[in-house]
Amino acid sequence: MNLLILFDSDFIDEHRVCLRDRRLKHVLQVHQAQEGDTLRAGKLNGSLGEGRIITLSKSELIMDVSLHQSPPPPLPLTLIVALPRPKMFRRILRLSAELGIKQLHFIHSYRVEKSYWQSPALEESVQQEHFIAGLEQAKDTVLPTVHFHRFFKPFVEDQLPDISNNSHKLLCHPGDALPCPHQHNEAITLIIGPEGGFIPYEVEKFKAADFTQVHLGSRIYRVEHAIPLAIAKLYD
Amino acid sequence: MNLLILFDSDFIDEHRVCLRDRRLKHVLQVHQAQEGDTLRAGKLNGSLGEGRIITLSKSELIMDVSLHQSPPPPLPLTLIVALPRPKMFRRILRLSAELGIKQLHFIHSYRVEKSYWQSPALEESVQQEHFIAGLEQAKDTVLPTVHFHRFFKPFVEDQLPDISNNSHKLLCHPGDALPCPHQHNEAITLIIGPEGGFIPYEVEKFKAADFTQVHLGSRIYRVEHAIPLAIAKLYD
Repeated sequence: MNLLILFDSDFIDEHRVCLRDRRLKHVLQVHQAQEGDTLRAGKLNGSLGEGRIITLSKSELIMDVSLHQSPPPPLPLTLIVALPRPKMFRRILRLSAELGIKQLHFIHSYRVEKSYWQSPALEESVQQEHFIAGLEQAKDTVLPTVHFHRFFKPFVEDQLPDISNNSHKLLCHPGDALPCPHQHNEAITLIIGPEGGFIPYEVEKFKAADFTQVHLGSRIYRVEHAIPLAIAKLYD
Repeated sequence: MNLLILFDSDFIDEHRVCLRDRRLKHVLQVHQAQEGDTLRAGKLNGSLGEGRIITLSKSELIMDVSLHQSPPPPLPLTLIVALPRPKMFRRILRLSAELGIKQLHFIHSYRVEKSYWQSPALEESVQQEHFIAGLEQAKDTVLPTVHFHRFFKPFVEDQLPDISNNSHKLLCHPGDALPCPHQHNEAITLIIGPEGGFIPYEVEKFKAADFTQVHLGSRIYRVEHAIPLAIAKLYD
């Protein structure tokens, strides 16, 4: 972890935190820190800065923190993904937080197995765990917001126009498509399909909602790879 | 899997294969194929085409294959990565095969744990399993070649000049660096560091070997994410 994320419940005083959980373990085992050392820290959804270790033992870490920097700018991108299987769902949460995506929508589509919607991975506590891991990696503090849409047609017809309003609308789907543009650098709503792809009816619905179909070349990538590939092209 | 990879040992006749392993299971359970159906198939390190199912039962799949297409072009990139922990090593093998990388070098560096060099994940049979998964995903047949370099200094001084000869030389490392270029589209040797990064001595050694330092922005990414992010920028 490149940043210790702090929660309200960690604060024992205005500028002092006490940690006893996996973060303590990480500071001891990975950072191999000592009293007097400083560590990068940031408050969840708040500012970043440094913490100076006051006391450090196997049972607790007490740190004085000074948090005055703003978190890094978010990626101006709304990501819409067909709900993947639970293992990949968790990896996409982590990846999204790492990339700086703040608006994340998971949708149903014909090739999404219905059982995925019952997965315990969708619970908020699990989501948060994976988001935090991504934020710790990328030195960010701002949790992404997740939305779930279990019905395809009402999502595309009633909600997608508002969600994608004032943004460049891209559907990443192989076939009759333009190459994914480079360095677009503006607000984008990006849709990525399920393993096996969207069915033709779904592609047509997105096109009717003003989405431009783009591709990533002749290879077919896993969803968790298509996301960073598309985003890296679209932004500097 | 988007492509059935066939091995010499699968062929029971010049144009006929018999499959009994996980591929049979996949065709039954995921493709839910039937006799008479055609499936995308390709011979390892050879041509691609189609297979028509002659007989299909729980115990075997017999298919007549016609393989006349060339595999997709390789990415003109040699990837050099500090050896990561075993779990990430396996994911990077799969990812590399998916991306079309054919030359892959794993090197030692100060922040690579020595124990990683003893991992069973480095065995050839394990490597092949993960490469095949990537090839099946990307509809490619050509196995990447892997090289291991356990000593940093002799690697950089004696081997890197030959490996990177006639290519654009890029070291992906945050700090005093240029933004990673977009759409370079030519032969590149790309070096990516370990979790925690290369140490200054290592960075200097690469610079002395004519590598240009580039960065991926202010965020710090996991190695397995830095690879697709850099590659997506560098190529169309």
